[in-house]
Parts: sequence; C-alpha cells; structure tokens
Amino acid sequence: MGILQITKEEQELMLSRFRVMHADKDEILVREGMASNRMFFVKKGCLRIYFLQADGTEATRYIAFENNFATALMAFITQEPSLEYVQALESSELLYISRGEFYDMMNKVPGWEHFYRKYLESAYVNNTNRLMSFITMDATARYKLLLEENPAIVQRLSNKMVANYLGITQEALSRLKSKLSKG
Amino acid sequence: MGILQITKEEQELMLSRFRVMHADKDEILVREGMASNRMFFVKKGCLRIYFLQADGTEATRYIAFENNFATALMAFITQEPSLEYVQALESSELLYISRGEFYDMMNKVPGWEHFYRKYLESAYVNNTNRLMSFITMDATARYKLLLEENPAIVQRLSNKMVANYLGITQEALSRLKSKLSKG
Repeated sequence: MGILQITKEEQELMLSRFRVMHADKDEILVREGMASNRMFFVKKGCLRIYFLQADGTEATRYIAFENNFATALMAFITQEPSLEYVQALESSELLYISRGEFYDMMNKVPGWEHFYRKYLESAYVNNTNRLMSFITMDATARYKLLLEENPAIVQRLSNKMVANYLGITQEALSRLKSKLSKG
Repeated sequence: MGILQITKEEQELMLSRFRVMHADKDEILVREGMASNRMFFVKKGCLRIYFLQADGTEATRYIAFENNFATALMAFITQEPSLEYVQALESSELLYISRGEFYDMMNKVPGWEHFYRKYLESAYVNNTNRLMSFITMDATARYKLLLEENPAIVQRLSNKMVANYLGITQEALSRLKSKLSKG
C-alpha cells in the first residue's frame, strides 16, 4: 500500500461500513462526464483508473490490486463530472461506500478523517510521481521504475496494458524488453 | 484559494503557530535533493514551485500569491529528498512552520488535521489538474485555462514566467497571444 500507513484496525473500521459488489472483466464503473460517487476497495481482482489524452488514446493513472482503495479521486472530491474512467481489468470482488456516507462518517466515526488524511497523502504522492514520470522520464526510465515499484503490473497484466501504462506501443515495449535483457 | 474551503477561524488557528520570515526576489528556499521541512504561507509576494524536466528545462507546477499555503508537498509528506524547488518570485513576506511542529499539531490542536485534510484535497485536485494539463492539452488550451482560472499569473508575472508556466517559449507565447487577440 506504499506510504499509506494505516493499521489493520483502522482499515477494518473503514471497511465495516462498505458494501459488497461484483464487477465483470472489462466493466466500466465510472465514465468521463459521470459523477464519481463511490470509493472502492479491491477484495479480489483489479481496478484501473485512466483518462483520455488530447489524441484520444488512453493514459492509465493508477492500477489497484487486492487490498487497495481506488476511485476517480478528483471528481470524488470536487463532485464535478469525472475526467477519469474506473474499469475492472479482471472479474473483481469489490467493496464500496457512497461518497455521501464516506463524508458523513468523517463527522461520526473517530479515526475516519485521520484515515482519509493518510489516504490523501498517499494518493497525492503516488499521483504526483506518476504524472511527473510522464513529463520528466523517457520510456526506458518509466519501465525500470515500474519493475522496481510495481512489478505486479508487468507480471499479471497483458503486454497491451503494460504498454498502455508506460504510454508506448506494444512494439516499443518489445524493443525495450529486448534491449534491457541484453544490457 | 480554489476549493480549499476553510473558515477564517481555522486559518487563524493554523497561522498563530507560524513564524515570520523574509525571502528576497529570486531566492530559492528549497532545492532538488534538499529536505522539504517547512510549510509556507504567503503574506505578501509570491512563491513558485517547479521541477526540472528530462531536458533540464524548468516546469512550474504551482504559483502561490498572497493568502495561500505552499511547500514542496511530496517531499514534505514523504521526508525524502525534494524533486521540486521552492522560489520567491518577488521580495516576499512569508510565514512558516517546521514539518515537525506541523505534524505534532495534528495530535495536539483540534481542527488541525481537519484543516490539513482539506488542504490535501485542494492540493490533490490542483496538482492533478495541473499535471494532466501537460499531458492532455495543447498550449492554446492551457493558455485559455490559465486566463480563466488564474489570470493573476498573466497580469502580474513576466512574459518569461508565463511562457514557462505554459511550457512554451516566449516566442510561442507571443504568437499565441497574437492569434487569440485576432480570433
């Protein structure tokens, strides 16, 4: 969970208020223009958060595997229409809570705002690192960073999705792998 | 202050713990590789947060005018060496608090964590919008957004800084202005 240092008790407190739901493989839970009114937690499977670039291609911001929270966070905060999509990459068992309940809990449940503060710190750092990597790094550097920080993405997802995550074509990814295995 | 909806009382509570300092025009308060161990508040003047791109050019992430908080937030959270610079663009009167005191207050001062949670939400939204604009928008769209959301940057800062904020050359900015004034 990266720098999100919450205790098991804090997490269980949160999750006791969540409901169970299922998402099919490739199902889209939030689209661009929709409200983002649920916070999700991945019990089993995998959620992807992505947005469309100026040329219409998809850019993946975040991939949440088991035991991670995920939502289209900017729209969750602002209640404006989402710029991001939330998609299940695998058949997934999810927990969720509505945005209204989530914010309501902050006034009612001790520790909830503390959890959310830590979650926001983690989301800020992850997202800033991720978006800055598009601006400051080339594809080779992004691939090395991915292998170091999030190897599950390479191990578990299709080459197509890994290439998308890196912002390159599948052909470029093949060349990159071949280059690095020789180097 | 964008979506940071804190009350005047909340802000005064925070600032009563801050100390006064001065920064000269162009003074750099945090450099890449340094710790980011202060949260700043701009009383008068202006702070810029920027980072270096792969080609060595500066990319401005955020400009804080009067009555805004600013820091190299990612490193402030993680305590890792900063990837960002904090620079005074004008001779500035600042308030600041050390990171240690800031976190200490969360356990001691009621309302402090609530404030920080709202600050983080605002920072997340501002920063995500800003970094996504580099990825999803062309220079014309970024310029129009800037005029709409933050005209003080265009009105108060040099053409050189406005061009830098947009990630384009000064010549490209002149062409853009000329094109838009004709359109």
